[in-house]
Amino acid sequence: MTDAVKEFNDVFPVLAEELLSHLRSLRIPENAIEWFERSMRHNVLGGKMNRGLTVAETLRILKRGEPLSKEEIFKANLLGWCIEWLQAFFLVSDDIMDNSKTRRGQPCWYRVEAVGNIAINDAFILESAIYFFLKKHFKKDAYYVDLIELFHETTYQTELGQLLDLITAPEDDVDLSKFSIEKHSFIVVYKTAYYSFYLPVALAMHMAGVKDEAAFKQAESILLPLGEYFQVQDDYLDCYGNPATIGKIGTDIEDNKCSWLINQALAKATPEQRKILDENYGRREEVNVIAVKEVFAEINVEGLFKAYEEESYNRLNALIAKVDHPLLSQDVFTSFMKRIYKRTK
Amino acid sequence: MTDAVKEFNDVFPVLAEELLSHLRSLRIPENAIEWFERSMRHNVLGGKMNRGLTVAETLRILKRGEPLSKEEIFKANLLGWCIEWLQAFFLVSDDIMDNSKTRRGQPCWYRVEAVGNIAINDAFILESAIYFFLKKHFKKDAYYVDLIELFHETTYQTELGQLLDLITAPEDDVDLSKFSIEKHSFIVVYKTAYYSFYLPVALAMHMAGVKDEAAFKQAESILLPLGEYFQVQDDYLDCYGNPATIGKIGTDIEDNKCSWLINQALAKATPEQRKILDENYGRREEVNVIAVKEVFAEINVEGLFKAYEEESYNRLNALIAKVDHPLLSQDVFTSFMKRIYKRTK
Repeated sequence: MTDAVKEFNDVFPVLAEELLSHLRSLRIPENAIEWFERSMRHNVLGGKMNRGLTVAETLRILKRGEPLSKEEIFKANLLGWCIEWLQAFFLVSDDIMDNSKTRRGQPCWYRVEAVGNIAINDAFILESAIYFFLKKHFKKDAYYVDLIELFHETTYQTELGQLLDLITAPEDDVDLSKFSIEKHSFIVVYKTAYYSFYLPVALAMHMAGVKDEAAFKQAESILLPLGEYFQVQDDYLDCYGNPATIGKIGTDIEDNKCSWLINQALAKATPEQRKILDENYGRREEVNVIAVKEVFAEINVEGLFKAYEEESYNRLNALIAKVDHPLLSQDVFTSFMKRIYKRTK
Repeated sequence: MTDAVKEFNDVFPVLAEELLSHLRSLRIPENAIEWFERSMRHNVLGGKMNRGLTVAETLRILKRGEPLSKEEIFKANLLGWCIEWLQAFFLVSDDIMDNSKTRRGQPCWYRVEAVGNIAINDAFILESAIYFFLKKHFKKDAYYVDLIELFHETTYQTELGQLLDLITAPEDDVDLSKFSIEKHSFIVVYKTAYYSFYLPVALAMHMAGVKDEAAFKQAESILLPLGEYFQVQDDYLDCYGNPATIGKIGTDIEDNKCSWLINQALAKATPEQRKILDENYGRREEVNVIAVKEVFAEINVEGLFKAYEEESYNRLNALIAKVDHPLLSQDVFTSFMKRIYKRTK
């Protein structure tokens, strides 16, 4: 475990104890405290924590090698954990809405014995914890309101992306005429890129004392397309990745997902191919999945992705090369790029 | 319609248009904007709006007859609508968790054609709207952060009350040993009294420029017991009210609710009566409900309520008579009291 990972992990027990001791001070009955703790551990822990780790990492880059104080490390990692709490709020509810079975190698929270739809309220509580932490640790900082507004806005953006995704691609009503490349782009930027790419960097920028709106706009102008590229990779790996490497068997075709691949195929399909897609996409049987994948092969969707990956790499690098705001650093973005270019998992 | 009601109602279309024009500026596809508007109208409108109306009413009392400016009226009513949005967020999700069928005379949102569990995300969006409005209209006010924190804390309190309620009285697992008068009190104070009684008054106090924490504490010390008394009345009316007057047929006994009545009965039941309650509470058949009501009659739960109502009335009036903070007024509390003492609906 690297020092950065250890520093990050060390913050979780502190935060958990803050929440629990607050609950004890309210004299909420013990059975509710136990439930709360079980929900928190089940839903916040167990992920890759990439988003959470990025805050302190970005702050280090923005401070240009100047060592962070113990307090700065703690607070940056605390903000990282707030992203993890936010993500837990989203994932608990997404899993109910998507009728998912497992998450991070264990049953989804709503499928745990005796939980069911109580998970909806548990998701709300996970969200509330963010503002409890911010008030406790940042109230005296000049950028306290900026942090709150950033979490509010990112939450709203993610919810709007989720809304468009849910009504565009409902699992029980396949209608490919609802799909489009524009909708796919809106969905991935709003549902994923804002909270996974822009949020951790913007949080670190606030901690670094950045006030200039232009710096945030410049960061956003790179991080959103970077997040979109990341999500397109996800869609590609769902279909063409190695299940052993990515750790799951993709089911986007069966689940009627509005993925990058189907949108590329729809844009290029002949009337005959379109008919096959209409008749087979979003269905459970293996024969349906094979028929869709055959059309993908005819259209060479895999080749379209390879070309998109090269084009994205060049386009994003060109964007990064133009980063010139004195309070930013190109390294913030190249470190993301290195992690994701041609990733296989 | 009184002037106050008209002034309040006039604010809704302004707020709705602010949200929708913001969405249009994001270029979110039209089908999502239509969905958003349908969810907002279905879920925010149609209630009695008591909570929402209370903000401007309280502000008028706190300003001691000094007429409010147009801007003050608008902003107080806007805060009132924020409570209605908050309530919509709670009700949409509560109805899913309680498996309810109708709300305000129409199907619950999650039961509307094609909605289902998408309602969970719609509930989140209703919550996000609150902070959108606060930022747009209060960012320049000195009490902006106080408003945000008050909404956060009230939301968290309500969620904690809901958590305790859900795990104490699950519909599918009747266990009366989980109930207690203390839990009932915690549930009603946290789940209802904070957002329905304390929140509207505290919002008006912020608008009136109150800063002294002691004034908020004094208001809370009356409004929480007042809210508890209100909720006990609700429990009473569910069983003993006139369905034609209260507008619904109560089902607390069938639904295994941790209501004031069952807790009173449990506290006084003989072993024989306890056995009957254990065997019949939380079950759907009429014969079960009748058996529970017979035990209630033997214990004279109705008489216990009448005594509680008198005791509460005297206790709360004594508390109100002691209100002496120069920035408060006893009228704030007596106006609540007049509305709810011996209410039949």
